[in-house]
Amino acid sequence: MSNVDSMQKLFVNELRDLYSAENQITKALPKMAKAASSTELRTALEHHLRETEGQIQRLDQIFEMLGENPKGKTCDGIKGVLDEGSQMLNDAKEGDVRDEAMISAGQRVEHYEMAAYGTVRTYAERLGKPRIVELLQKTLEEEKAADKKLTEISNKVHQHMQHAA
Amino acid sequence: MSNVDSMQKLFVNELRDLYSAENQITKALPKMAKAASSTELRTALEHHLRETEGQIQRLDQIFEMLGENPKGKTCDGIKGVLDEGSQMLNDAKEGDVRDEAMISAGQRVEHYEMAAYGTVRTYAERLGKPRIVELLQKTLEEEKAADKKLTEISNKVHQHMQHAA
Repeated sequence: MSNVDSMQKLFVNELRDLYSAENQITKALPKMAKAASSTELRTALEHHLRETEGQIQRLDQIFEMLGENPKGKTCDGIKGVLDEGSQMLNDAKEGDVRDEAMISAGQRVEHYEMAAYGTVRTYAERLGKPRIVELLQKTLEEEKAADKKLTEISNKVHQHMQHAA
Repeated sequence: MSNVDSMQKLFVNELRDLYSAENQITKALPKMAKAASSTELRTALEHHLRETEGQIQRLDQIFEMLGENPKGKTCDGIKGVLDEGSQMLNDAKEGDVRDEAMISAGQRVEHYEMAAYGTVRTYAERLGKPRIVELLQKTLEEEKAADKKLTEISNKVHQHMQHAA
């Protein structure tokens, strides 16, 4: 069963995992944006949707450079994280609490991606693929910025709650 | 359906999610340690198992302080991440490649936990629970250190591969 017998194959395998992850995320983000009460949160989620589409294009470029097919794998990790996020959204009361629940779920997604992009960027370095390193680094920085943005919005939602109390 | 209608309830909900996550992790770590080829990786995973047991005790303490039951939730997020890790382990050839696959999976787990502990620590601060903040901060630092340790081991596995090539 051990069809992954080289770092090159592990690299492609992990890129396919990310390709599936990003595609799942593009389906989840519009639902999250629709459920947001804070305009800033909704705008941030919509912005991240466009960013995610750009990240998929980068992955497409990478697969073309490698002469590999991006498809054939389902990212079960992000599937679990998104299913849980969707559950958190449904369980939380509309308004500030639901916004906080979505921010929490969104930060789990961003952290999963930070780990995964950090790994493939390191593999690309080791495999001597500087152009691919550059593309993956760009996405990694976007994920980190998206995570920071969610922290900022959470602080504002908290202030809003205190003001309302 | 919106039974989570306050930050206090969201806080307890997220702590229950983490309680389930940590318990799932204690079941996965011995299998990972057994499958490791690098002695350093095996030792690190065994060390993290003991650390995780301590983290569960901290959560037990927190639930006692809150007068809440730790059970009643399954963490679907970590379930997905662990299922995927187990698949990666099975697909990868024994030796350095499998070690790298496990490190990659382990870093996804650590990042999930960093996001989740970061969230509950912030909630505890906002809810004015400094003793709980302290306990959660300790665990958060352990997760960050475990992630760094995995990066270090990955660099050594890479050196080992280059030496063998």
